[in-house]
Amino acid sequence: MRRRVAEARVGRLATVTPNGLPHVVPCCFVLEGDTVYSAVDHKPKSTFNLARLDNLRATGLASLLVDHYEEDWARLWWVRLDGTGRVEEGGDTRERALGLLAAKYEQYRRQMPAGPAVVIEITTWRAWP
Amino acid sequence: MRRRVAEARVGRLATVTPNGLPHVVPCCFVLEGDTVYSAVDHKPKSTFNLARLDNLRATGLASLLVDHYEEDWARLWWVRLDGTGRVEEGGDTRERALGLLAAKYEQYRRQMPAGPAVVIEITTWRAWP
Repeated sequence: MRRRVAEARVGRLATVTPNGLPHVVPCCFVLEGDTVYSAVDHKPKSTFNLARLDNLRATGLASLLVDHYEEDWARLWWVRLDGTGRVEEGGDTRERALGLLAAKYEQYRRQMPAGPAVVIEITTWRAWP
Repeated sequence: MRRRVAEARVGRLATVTPNGLPHVVPCCFVLEGDTVYSAVDHKPKSTFNLARLDNLRATGLASLLVDHYEEDWARLWWVRLDGTGRVEEGGDTRERALGLLAAKYEQYRRQMPAGPAVVIEITTWRAWP
């Protein structure tokens, strides 16, 4: 379960808006222990995309899904990490996040993320099947 | 945008629990107009997985993400469908859902879903980039 999450190249981050609506975006991330780091990077963004930051600031709630799909449904799996999420605009934690992300993603080594880091402290691991 | 959603084999469905927590699961689905149909099928389920049904019954809120990941980040995209979601335990709407799902997925033609259908009426389409 931990290996599947650590090796995944993309996850889907679900948050809740201040009005209680569900919100979900794909995101690159890195796992360290029971912490997930993500970043707002140089991929071109619409304003919608940054709603995740507003949601985390407002609610502090995050759920990250890592899953595998293929046409042989006997081989499907998912792992879901529920926890608290926060936004780090700068400082040591953001630097640590960027370092770990750059170590995992060659794309980040070529261009470091310019925006804040997202930090999720995992409280619950769930896996299927 | 519509073609990308219609052709996608898997999406990620975000809901909100009765307690206001984010929840997200992968799901197979079919698009018809501005309606998305999904089903609870024969893939082995844990009790966690059915939380989506409780969430839809409690809140009626759903957000379905369809996205594409590859290592060339210039080719990433996503489409997100926000709307209202409900659970159909039986009746014509569930039958229609199962028929459309079976037409799209050969896996469903071999074994029809035994559980309820999920119906999402899309109110907002968003796409990136």
